[in-house]
Amino acid sequence: MEFTFLGTSAGTPTRSRNVTGLALCRSGPKPWYLVDCGEGTQHQLLRTRYSVMQLRAIFITHIHGDHTFGLPGLLTSASMLGRTEPLDIIAPTQVQRLIHAVINNSDSSLSYSLNFIDSEAPDFYWQDDYFSVTNVALSHRVPCRAYKFTERHLERQLLQAELRQDGIEPGPSWGELQKGNDVLLDDGRLIRSDDYTHLPRTARRLIVAGDNDTPELLAEAARDSHVLVHESTYTQEVADRVGPWPQHSSAEQVARFAQQVKLPNLVLTHFSSRYQSGPVGTPHISQVAAEAMQHYQGNLFLARDFETYRLEKDLSLVPLSKGT
Amino acid sequence: MEFTFLGTSAGTPTRSRNVTGLALCRSGPKPWYLVDCGEGTQHQLLRTRYSVMQLRAIFITHIHGDHTFGLPGLLTSASMLGRTEPLDIIAPTQVQRLIHAVINNSDSSLSYSLNFIDSEAPDFYWQDDYFSVTNVALSHRVPCRAYKFTERHLERQLLQAELRQDGIEPGPSWGELQKGNDVLLDDGRLIRSDDYTHLPRTARRLIVAGDNDTPELLAEAARDSHVLVHESTYTQEVADRVGPWPQHSSAEQVARFAQQVKLPNLVLTHFSSRYQSGPVGTPHISQVAAEAMQHYQGNLFLARDFETYRLEKDLSLVPLSKGT
Repeated sequence: MEFTFLGTSAGTPTRSRNVTGLALCRSGPKPWYLVDCGEGTQHQLLRTRYSVMQLRAIFITHIHGDHTFGLPGLLTSASMLGRTEPLDIIAPTQVQRLIHAVINNSDSSLSYSLNFIDSEAPDFYWQDDYFSVTNVALSHRVPCRAYKFTERHLERQLLQAELRQDGIEPGPSWGELQKGNDVLLDDGRLIRSDDYTHLPRTARRLIVAGDNDTPELLAEAARDSHVLVHESTYTQEVADRVGPWPQHSSAEQVARFAQQVKLPNLVLTHFSSRYQSGPVGTPHISQVAAEAMQHYQGNLFLARDFETYRLEKDLSLVPLSKGT
Repeated sequence: MEFTFLGTSAGTPTRSRNVTGLALCRSGPKPWYLVDCGEGTQHQLLRTRYSVMQLRAIFITHIHGDHTFGLPGLLTSASMLGRTEPLDIIAPTQVQRLIHAVINNSDSSLSYSLNFIDSEAPDFYWQDDYFSVTNVALSHRVPCRAYKFTERHLERQLLQAELRQDGIEPGPSWGELQKGNDVLLDDGRLIRSDDYTHLPRTARRLIVAGDNDTPELLAEAARDSHVLVHESTYTQEVADRVGPWPQHSSAEQVARFAQQVKLPNLVLTHFSSRYQSGPVGTPHISQVAAEAMQHYQGNLFLARDFETYRLEKDLSLVPLSKGT
């Protein structure tokens, strides 16, 4: 499982950070998934291995422009490239209105269909062959969600000794059982895959959260998750000065939460544009890192644009490239 | 008078060319003017000396997304930066609907007012202290305009000998006359600025055209203009293969027109993303240049992103930086 940050700035882009977007895949870039789509996301994608032609679904956390204004351009560019595959858009219903209004007022049309799915539906659940996705309501100025991705269809190992012992000989039924399918034998017996296969590892689980001032809302979802990607717009000192109105989290808040729920890997993102990443300048992004480290003993990462992380099958998180 | 290309690609961005946008100023970046605003225009501006805080007006040639999808992000970013100055948006009326729909469906608001001016009004005319602007209807799949910028308030030279000869002595009235204002003297005489000042040079005139398959529509406007910025989406061979539907111009078409009207400076832009600018790759942007050169003997330029041109007071056009 890999994910690449397409933007790590809050509100407005900077010279080194675009506004929010994250590309996710299970094992290679076909298919892949996009979480949020700030302006310029299609531009960022041109510098990655991800193509809008292989995009399976877009998950939008909330309606703010720094998470949505890249949608019209990305969708119409995919059309100009000749996409025909339908595309799922999991988002608040206003996003559908925004897209339709923009298409209708720009003489645009799409060569493929959009399948809108309401992210705020109480029974929200999405899945394909690679992932099942649930979400968690967060606390922000507008309704906002965290998406939890759980990998599906893990490789099963056949319990060959048990199969032979019960008189089930090698053949097509073994293949079905290994795929997770139950099998009706010629002798009338119904054989359950779960009884004759073994899952040698845990399904990997990743949470990508939207804007949120209450990390504790993720306590339940985080319990069995291996990575949390969460906003950390400011340090606590700046958050105190700004006041509660924007409803963002400080580095300290997120770090304390991650420590409390014993989260193994925490990736912070969505930094206020006041933070610089160059060698000089105050306030500096290292202040955010220093604050988080004080309160969290797990593996801490501060995301940068184009940085790619791999969540290995052994559940370790490895940064693959340094980003910008 | 200077202008900087913020995007020179048609339809979709490439790694080296953004979609359309052009920044223009009279003498320094305060105030400045934007012609078209494709997605990512605010990002491009971060790499120039232009700030959204000093932007005086946005001129939109037509409603297509590669000329408009950067508006929501640019406008809301200006708001987040605290802009309070009203902003003129000269555009087809659908652009107003697009902006309102996006703002209403993204929990956005602006800290300043937008003043929408219909670019398709038959009597369109706009001016401020620096420029007067007219437009010309072009031929494209949707209504589209070229904007002609003419500098205003040229520096006048006082005809001092004539003033003294007519008994008008140095004083505040000389200052008013030099500014172009007529003056009522104490003795009751009304003195006209035009009678006692001289304009030592011609007002500079620049046309920035939108998408257009009929350059000849600009014949009248081009007659006294010093620079034409015009799309040249393909070479003639590609245009023939694509067919007339997209309603774009070939390099040959624009070059023939510029030669015919004896235009001194022609800057081509809005190149199909099929053209590469690197050392290898076919088709190559140099094919567009070669074709235009065959049919035009004036000063020919092919725009690149971030390239800045200065139209000097002596009416020569000088590229100031190489762009990307």
